Amino acid sequence: MKTSARNELNGVVTGIKSGGVMSEVMVQVSPNVTIVSTITNDSKESLALKEGSGVLALIKASMVILSKQKLASSARNNIEAKVLDVIKGAVNSEVKLQLEQKILYSVVTNEAIDDLEIKKNDSLYVMFKASSVILAV
Amino acid sequence: MKTSARNELNGVVTGIKSGGVMSEVMVQVSPNVTIVSTITNDSKESLALKEGSGVLALIKASMVILSKQKLASSARNNIEAKVLDVIKGAVNSEVKLQLEQKILYSVVTNEAIDDLEIKKNDSLYVMFKASSVILAV
Amino acid sequence: MKTSARNELNGVVTGIKSGGVMSEVMVQVSPNVTIVSTITNDSKESLALKEGSGVLALIKASMVILSKQKLASSARNNIEAKVLDVIKGAVNSEVKLQLEQKILYSVVTNEAIDDLEIKKNDSLYVMFKASSVILAV
Repeated sequence: MKTSARNELNGVVTGIKSGGVMSEVMVQVSPNVTIVSTITNDSKESLALKEGSGVLALIKASMVILSKQKLASSARNNIEAKVLDVIKGAVNSEVKLQLEQKILYSVVTNEAIDDLEIKKNDSLYVMFKASSVILAV
Repeated sequence: MKTSARNELNGVVTGIKSGGVMSEVMVQVSPNVTIVSTITNDSKESLALKEGSGVLALIKASMVILSKQKLASSARNNIEAKVLDVIKGAVNSEVKLQLEQKILYSVVTNEAIDDLEIKKNDSLYVMFKASSVILAV
Repeated sequence: MKTSARNELNGVVTGIKSGGVMSEVMVQVSPNVTIVSTITNDSKESLALKEGSGVLALIKASMVILSKQKLASSARNNIEAKVLDVIKGAVNSEVKLQLEQKILYSVVTNEAIDDLEIKKNDSLYVMFKASSVILAV
């Protein structure tokens, strides 16, 4: 681990779409899992990102929302995952998830764990916004 | 509750303003409360959003900032609210708020509760960025 | 403290770069520390921001990532800091940091503290996205 962000997924840039100020970068982190990140064009240039670049996608565990069903939503990342473990704290729980070949952590409130009845071996969906993903090289 | 996001406010789209890459969507969640969300144009199209669409605005409780006065700020959402309850944890507190006809939760540090002297029945302002609001249909 | 955001850094606007929908605002908060914030053009106009304006940069402690090395990343804010204190909670720790003349707080998981071996007097880097910074006047 290089940073305090719980999730650091290594991957390869498979596509870039640039607007006037912002760019949308697609990063494949597992054969069937592609993450979308929005970054500024300045960042894209300073990191010299292009298709085929190896990158690290950083996502804070607190930015990852869990959902039992696949919701049609504006969050660009909506990926099926399997619950490997639920570690309960006083107020929040840490949920360890398998995304194909990768591990992802989510921190949610205990109320959410109880309301959604999240437990080990469950299949569910992780949701996070493209703007929550930092890319590093 | 469909997701681990503590706040899921149902509402109706009352306006959309689109740029080259991003769109700003206005969602009325109560007669006098309208929330602003910024989403990508891709999301707007995949959700087929238009004026009059029914949507769910998802906001993580940890993204909601509380303020005693109405601050002039870049946060697009700045709404008066009444404190219904403060539930203290070891480090963080959960604040339950009434926004006209809706309930909103905010998670802040205990220091913030003490410094701002936040207590039941207080009138204050909730602030959150348009980019913190996920829309789902 | 005016809001529940743990970090409220006062500074002066030293540059503004505007796109079609978004603006990038540079705020100097200490002689050698400049923070980058992305806000909507609507916000820039409603706050009447221009070079020389005095502003308050609000950053939630939970949005601040810590890193031992200076990572080349898409996060626009990547600033050297010194650890003044680490206050451990049950699940999360609060890290108090000196950024030249300013104090900044970061909340990270206890695992991150252990993995990165973060302790008092360490030199490290704080990372946060320009989109995590709210400007107030």
